[in-house]
Amino acid sequence: MLRMLQEREYSAIAEKYKSIVEQRFAALKGNRKEPRFVYEPISYALGTGGKRIRSVMVLLACEAVGGSPRSALDAAVAVELLHNFTLVHDDVMDNAVLRRGQPTVCKKWNRDVAILSGDELLAIAYRFLLKTKSPHLARILGVFTDAFVEVCEGQGFDKEFERLKDVTSGDYLMMVRKKTGRLISAATEIGGLIGNGAAREISALRRFGELLGIAFQIMDDVLDIAGDEEEFGKTIGGDIVEGKKTYLLVKSRERVKGADRKLLLKVIPGNTMDRKTIRRILEIYRREHVLDDARDEIGRNTRLAEKELAVVKPGNAKSTLLWLSKRLLARSS
Amino acid sequence: MLRMLQEREYSAIAEKYKSIVEQRFAALKGNRKEPRFVYEPISYALGTGGKRIRSVMVLLACEAVGGSPRSALDAAVAVELLHNFTLVHDDVMDNAVLRRGQPTVCKKWNRDVAILSGDELLAIAYRFLLKTKSPHLARILGVFTDAFVEVCEGQGFDKEFERLKDVTSGDYLMMVRKKTGRLISAATEIGGLIGNGAAREISALRRFGELLGIAFQIMDDVLDIAGDEEEFGKTIGGDIVEGKKTYLLVKSRERVKGADRKLLLKVIPGNTMDRKTIRRILEIYRREHVLDDARDEIGRNTRLAEKELAVVKPGNAKSTLLWLSKRLLARSS
Repeated sequence: MLRMLQEREYSAIAEKYKSIVEQRFAALKGNRKEPRFVYEPISYALGTGGKRIRSVMVLLACEAVGGSPRSALDAAVAVELLHNFTLVHDDVMDNAVLRRGQPTVCKKWNRDVAILSGDELLAIAYRFLLKTKSPHLARILGVFTDAFVEVCEGQGFDKEFERLKDVTSGDYLMMVRKKTGRLISAATEIGGLIGNGAAREISALRRFGELLGIAFQIMDDVLDIAGDEEEFGKTIGGDIVEGKKTYLLVKSRERVKGADRKLLLKVIPGNTMDRKTIRRILEIYRREHVLDDARDEIGRNTRLAEKELAVVKPGNAKSTLLWLSKRLLARSS
Repeated sequence: MLRMLQEREYSAIAEKYKSIVEQRFAALKGNRKEPRFVYEPISYALGTGGKRIRSVMVLLACEAVGGSPRSALDAAVAVELLHNFTLVHDDVMDNAVLRRGQPTVCKKWNRDVAILSGDELLAIAYRFLLKTKSPHLARILGVFTDAFVEVCEGQGFDKEFERLKDVTSGDYLMMVRKKTGRLISAATEIGGLIGNGAAREISALRRFGELLGIAFQIMDDVLDIAGDEEEFGKTIGGDIVEGKKTYLLVKSRERVKGADRKLLLKVIPGNTMDRKTIRRILEIYRREHVLDDARDEIGRNTRLAEKELAVVKPGNAKSTLLWLSKRLLARSS
């Protein structure tokens, strides 16, 4: 009974923080109207939902080291805008049709609109970040910019890997560290910096975010083949169709030989993947128990992440951060 | 005889500064290799030449107010990278095949590579800017980010105007102020800030850059129909083919009626523009003397720009800045 109550409390805190960030988005929508070519798709992209995890984590990390979450709000919005920039541009590169169950910007408008409004999202992100009042502003900008560099590199490796046949699980982990880990670690590190955390708290928050991000991406790979099509707003096995080198694929490839290996080597963009082929690949995943490996890897990273937070003093914010990370990795969509 | 000698000296200073910026680019190329998907196109884009005006102006503006140009070098590189980011992404949106006489990134590789390497150019731009040692760093970042926001807005208006029939010369000037003026004004303002210029010097440098940028863009519009195809690396009348609302087009439209007006209203993307139609439009430009209007507008903006610099103390850097602006507007490509 006590645990139930606590969960509800954590959930309420996370929801409250999420809605504060979304209020900022709403204000942003009202501010600028022209050129519509740029601002309409931005309003749309920010209005299609999303868990806003990264921004909530900025606020929680700030509070966890003793800062006021209010002081981290502009930075939280900036991190969320940077994340949305990556989504809008990635959807163009992935030819994605749906995002959060609704048409992507590149589908609803076109690729040019998605490129330009993505660029502008980023520009506005920096504008928000620069509003942050902190003696560590230069360092905060450095962390944010490093994350931006590495997210692009991660996406570059992801696209490069699509065309490669021999991607190892080591390559995969390097890629997701950059593509997903770095931005979540920037969120928690920036929160810690704004909250004037001690050096060891900042380091712990950064590593916490990075480990969580890696676990989070592997979870995404799992959900691609396990999620509910309607609820998740994606196509089941979409990663296979796109030739993505997911954790499940690279792990399977490291194990199988012969015809199975040949089949897995066909996961390259442009190869037509009919339902039957996808089903055969899913069968290999099942037989090789790579879903168990994935869950182990997720569990390992999550436990390491939790351990990192030992240096942070107990409190509601820290507990909510831990609760949020657990919930994210137990999600079904 | 004296004037000749001075010109040579100015040219030598500008060339020296340009080569210092290009040395930084070369070092940048050597630094990172992977993912090749991202870094090869960046090296290529930075290696296809260009006048590097914006970066040279950062250095000259810094020196003009008494600063050391060395102290502005990272910012100069940042401004040039931001400019190159806009070129790489604009080429995707404009389906451009040639840039500086060589294949564009989107042509040599593909659109996805151009999107991602453009994004990364921007990330690296911020990384360079953040290296700047200045007590005004936050303000410098603000100027840079505002320029980034407005460049995107300007490009948005430019694309929006392509589809519109009733773009006025007022709309046009607003668009080019954002699209071209803002980045050149950011270059001179940032240079002034790093050089610790007085408030009125900074304002003057900002306005100098903005006015020059507007003149510069109108010159670009003129060169589109006047340049030498091979030397300029563009197609003559390319703006007409793309449906661009250039200064020449909006001015002509404000004047003509009947069949001529109907013809000019056809300048919309997707309308096939054969050589005969282009020739008829060029004939209207000639008859309506809009090239003279363009030259007047360029002259007016240039004179106003020069006047702004009256508050800056005379010296080699200021003279070189003025010489450079004159030369840019007398260029034939």
